[in-house]
Amino acid sequence: MSQTFKGKITSRRGFLTSAAAVGAGAIVAGAAKGATPDPLITEVQPWAQGLGDGVDATPYGLPIEYENDVIRRNVEWLTADTISSINFTPIHALDGTITPQGCAFERHHSGAIELKKEDYRLMINGLVDTPLIFSYADLERFPRENHVYFCECAANTGMEWAGAQLNGAQFTHGMIHNMEYTGVPLRALLEEAGLDTAGDLSDKWVYVEGADASSNGRSIPMSKALDDVLVAFKANGEALRKEHGYPVRLVVPGWEGNMWVKWLRRVEVTDSAVESREETSKYTDTLADGTSRKWTWAMDAKSVVTSPSPQAPITHGTGPLVITGLAWSGRGAITRVDVSKDGGKTWETARLAKPGEKMALTRFYLDTTWDGTEMFLQSRAIDETGYVQPTKAQLREVRGENSVYHNNCIQTWWVRPNGEAENVEVS
Amino acid sequence: MSQTFKGKITSRRGFLTSAAAVGAGAIVAGAAKGATPDPLITEVQPWAQGLGDGVDATPYGLPIEYENDVIRRNVEWLTADTISSINFTPIHALDGTITPQGCAFERHHSGAIELKKEDYRLMINGLVDTPLIFSYADLERFPRENHVYFCECAANTGMEWAGAQLNGAQFTHGMIHNMEYTGVPLRALLEEAGLDTAGDLSDKWVYVEGADASSNGRSIPMSKALDDVLVAFKANGEALRKEHGYPVRLVVPGWEGNMWVKWLRRVEVTDSAVESREETSKYTDTLADGTSRKWTWAMDAKSVVTSPSPQAPITHGTGPLVITGLAWSGRGAITRVDVSKDGGKTWETARLAKPGEKMALTRFYLDTTWDGTEMFLQSRAIDETGYVQPTKAQLREVRGENSVYHNNCIQTWWVRPNGEAENVEVS
Repeated sequence: MSQTFKGKITSRRGFLTSAAAVGAGAIVAGAAKGATPDPLITEVQPWAQGLGDGVDATPYGLPIEYENDVIRRNVEWLTADTISSINFTPIHALDGTITPQGCAFERHHSGAIELKKEDYRLMINGLVDTPLIFSYADLERFPRENHVYFCECAANTGMEWAGAQLNGAQFTHGMIHNMEYTGVPLRALLEEAGLDTAGDLSDKWVYVEGADASSNGRSIPMSKALDDVLVAFKANGEALRKEHGYPVRLVVPGWEGNMWVKWLRRVEVTDSAVESREETSKYTDTLADGTSRKWTWAMDAKSVVTSPSPQAPITHGTGPLVITGLAWSGRGAITRVDVSKDGGKTWETARLAKPGEKMALTRFYLDTTWDGTEMFLQSRAIDETGYVQPTKAQLREVRGENSVYHNNCIQTWWVRPNGEAENVEVS
Repeated sequence: MSQTFKGKITSRRGFLTSAAAVGAGAIVAGAAKGATPDPLITEVQPWAQGLGDGVDATPYGLPIEYENDVIRRNVEWLTADTISSINFTPIHALDGTITPQGCAFERHHSGAIELKKEDYRLMINGLVDTPLIFSYADLERFPRENHVYFCECAANTGMEWAGAQLNGAQFTHGMIHNMEYTGVPLRALLEEAGLDTAGDLSDKWVYVEGADASSNGRSIPMSKALDDVLVAFKANGEALRKEHGYPVRLVVPGWEGNMWVKWLRRVEVTDSAVESREETSKYTDTLADGTSRKWTWAMDAKSVVTSPSPQAPITHGTGPLVITGLAWSGRGAITRVDVSKDGGKTWETARLAKPGEKMALTRFYLDTTWDGTEMFLQSRAIDETGYVQPTKAQLREVRGENSVYHNNCIQTWWVRPNGEAENVEVS
């Protein structure tokens, strides 16, 4: 397996010098002659002389204090109030693909409510034989599935329509998280209520709504509802967090986050879409001529370089450099990611950490060497449908700049010779 | 996909009655006639009338207060002090496969230390061309991999050698966690130090040790070191937690947790095993005749039913019941899990949530119907080598009862007609 990497560090000698620079002292022969001995090597350190914390110190642990900048952050000017607002996953500081619940982005319409399992009820009504009400304990008696899926807010990267505004991958692309969900297929609950899923349901919909004051309600075509939608109660193995809809939320794989209704209260089978506020005045995409696209549910293929990036500058100088980022598609698996250092003139194919999985984040790496000159870093995702992530110019040409949602354009970071990076547009 | 579940709820009418029992009122026709209206349905609840928390409430979130029993727990009588002890993952309350870092078991030999990234050094020395010292920033410049692996303490289930002692899956099987690790292959660092990995290294070893006062040191054969061992710095996307070895730990897939050295300080290439304290007086398996097995690194195939179990009793009465648990093998992927309700007399093949992955936890489900009679619940894992998880009697026959480690026997829960469960032995 590790054979993959042989020869990838293009300048071994260059790296040795770099390693020696940290104070390898007498250990590294040759390269480090005359270097100052590193007390972290030559002296017994305090943490090796005493005892640390016992196993009863933190029954439920938090990140170590040195990582206290790796947190969700909101942008004050974005909304009038934090109750109906959003915060952003610190994707610039994460690696791998799983998002810990503790720093997974939140979006509320009337704030995160507290709802006990004992007080939880889910109603299935409308065009079903037997309207039913399920308690939390009832849901636990249905066969469950586990899937890793991304959840992306339709407004993710929305500020980029008007130009390069926010300086950091957390803020341009952090309205996303990726978790292993455990839940019951919505299909099973609809069948329990007597929906004849063998019949023709092509004109049917479900209307789903939450238990919070906003009662965020959305219409979902029955074909999707019966395909892969989950009524989920766990994420990354444990109970959903309060801010993610405890005890039960909807999971609508690949589709915009607003449809992943939290504190799920009701699923009504209807013979037409409800055309609710959240799918008419909001979550539709206004085009240049003032008309709007609606029912733009799927999140198109997209990617972003998470490091280096404005919040994750290069601090180690020239030589070996790992460029990494995330790619995803609401229409299936990612099959390829390309990276450009020159603003899209030339491209190199990145290494995917694992084969892409349907509607889940894919981590990519480009193991490269930096010569210290400026870079205009971009990434470009391709999914299993053959769709290629577009440039910002291409998107604007067909959609204008009036929209808030569904901006999946290629992102550019200008990395300067000092290693700092900035959000820029290239033409 | 959801087709899988059609017909699995064996008694639909039985389930309807159960659902109605929670207070479906007028909604459920027939079954619920005369039922008391459920105020949770008929009245507007407080959480739908006011505002919840804003997105600035918890920059890094914790579980909701109602889940505050889902925590790591230690057993006071197990060790003399919590500094050199263990706590247990609450596997009875989790689902899916990922273990959140916050409740993933800990084992320390001299407590969990605090070590800043800036103070971190990793020395590679011994039989290499160029001994090297790496800073944390150096490690970040090598190509990385991501893998989900389980980490199991060799002593997991060790108390069962002497009989059914601890009443709960958390305590019998909770010295395990399963996370997505990001790190650099140890192979790449050894090659950077000039180890000729194309040559014959069959008699070589690495000795790995930690930076804490215990300096927990273990010998690993070079073949394993060059195969899949990772020098890891992230778990489930974010930095390792303090108690899991922040900033850097070793990941030794499938092998006993004691070898996954935390706060990794040094890797020495040697021409023989060191025979350290941790691999002679500890982490060897004393047999009935007083001799010991050593170099018992791989964790054999194993499984446990997590629910129902003593900490997760059946509370819903007869009818549809989801039996679930975890299976794993240090020698490859899980290919099948069987479940018995009668103490091993008859077996049913469980449904795997996903195809088994190498050296990672596999979630299994048996979607069944409970008639209210007592059950002697067992699970039995089979891995890709064809190995079948043994009974406790089979293990004792070849290993006696003197050992602490490597007890991978079949576990039995006696589920009584009232739904409560107890750790028992069946003969």
